Amino acid sequence: VSSSAAAGAGALTEVDAALYAEIEQFYAGQIRLLSDGAVRRWAETFTKEAVFEQDGRLGQDGSRAPRAVWRGRADIVAAATAGASGRAQATGVVRRYWVGMLTVGRIDADTLRTGYYGALVNTVPDTGAGLFRSTFGTDVLVRDGVEWLVAHRRIDHDDVDRG
Amino acid sequence: VSSSAAAGAGALTEVDAALYAEIEQFYAGQIRLLSDGAVRRWAETFTKEAVFEQDGRLGQDGSRAPRAVWRGRADIVAAATAGASGRAQATGVVRRYWVGMLTVGRIDADTLRTGYYGALVNTVPDTGAGLFRSTFGTDVLVRDGVEWLVAHRRIDHDDVDRG
Amino acid sequence: VSSSAAAGAGALTEVDAALYAEIEQFYAGQIRLLSDGAVRRWAETFTKEAVFEQDGRLGQDGSRAPRAVWRGRADIVAAATAGASGRAQATGVVRRYWVGMLTVGRIDADTLRTGYYGALVNTVPDTGAGLFRSTFGTDVLVRDGVEWLVAHRRIDHDDVDRG
Repeated sequence: VSSSAAAGAGALTEVDAALYAEIEQFYAGQIRLLSDGAVRRWAETFTKEAVFEQDGRLGQDGSRAPRAVWRGRADIVAAATAGASGRAQATGVVRRYWVGMLTVGRIDADTLRTGYYGALVNTVPDTGAGLFRSTFGTDVLVRDGVEWLVAHRRIDHDDVDRG
Repeated sequence: VSSSAAAGAGALTEVDAALYAEIEQFYAGQIRLLSDGAVRRWAETFTKEAVFEQDGRLGQDGSRAPRAVWRGRADIVAAATAGASGRAQATGVVRRYWVGMLTVGRIDADTLRTGYYGALVNTVPDTGAGLFRSTFGTDVLVRDGVEWLVAHRRIDHDDVDRG
Repeated sequence: VSSSAAAGAGALTEVDAALYAEIEQFYAGQIRLLSDGAVRRWAETFTKEAVFEQDGRLGQDGSRAPRAVWRGRADIVAAATAGASGRAQATGVVRRYWVGMLTVGRIDADTLRTGYYGALVNTVPDTGAGLFRSTFGTDVLVRDGVEWLVAHRRIDHDDVDRG
């Protein structure tokens, strides 16, 4: 509950349906780049100074990694590359990151705040698919000419005990 | 199969892409209010006389609660509040209710009929995420000035034996 | 990764938000026809000469069926009908096929290439829901007057070992 409230979308101006569809399209395209392994092109959908923060991951032994904060495209690329290659070498797993229930609010003409559910689906070869993690994301998007870029992303993992 | 057929969308006029995106946006915003715990504001996305009906839930012991029908906002708020607080106290579980595969048909200028898949994802702290329930929803939406409101909602649970 | 790359969407012109929403609507409507059991009307959302190809299914004993290629509406109907009736008789299972993270690129004025995640959710009566399969789809859509139709569909299953 608290993680969702972080979106703070309540006070923002709602966007029209055309912009809403445009932002849906942005997320689908961005995620596709990552699942295609085009990490550099994916990173170019962030601003150069973008900040990406997320909860530490829960390990299989029940311990949790520290909260991660990456600053700038180079850091973001490095983290995504390390994550992707580690997983591929280890398991051959196919990851699908679904975004849904997207809300879009306007901060100003060239700045949006979005909130969205995330669900990470993993498939191990010759084995079934599994729902691996559920998250809540909050982004600040800025318009760079005609394109939207992520200036700030925060991913909260639902499995964190916020008791 | 029978639950989906209840949508009866076949005979309705299709809506244009702009209205389609607007209704997608409506559902994302409505669901967010509920997951943020803003139950009263969520209830205001229903008409005052709205009817919300759904299958009874399947308990962990395999028994099923009776079919529920709530009439009017006050009843809808009471039911949602009781459900949310019961779950939170019991388990600290984070629930994400996904809506997808939305269809929108027009009954008349100010009345729409929608149909949609629902998937309820639950996460228990320090444990993995799980797909908890799959549903099919059918709503009648009415326009109140510029806003759309739910006048009638019916949620069919896929785990009901309709054999 | 390789299955997603098959979309080859990189070189295509992006479509505007209105067309994007229209294609989202197309997929939701098409899938609804199938889950409603309207197999013939579903098949009419393909061109007469459409080709539908997909990986063979992984059986419960770990063996995999051969890759399937259906050519033309009659074959596509026959395959879908056989699949649906076999499942219904066997188990009474309710299947929900979710499409998400849709990308749409333009090949020319009347031809689009799409890519999308798929997730198949199965529910057995009086039992919980489960994520059954994760896929990646690539379609060629052609405009037939005002309607879009699928001319080619390729579904890659994430559980195929592409090592």
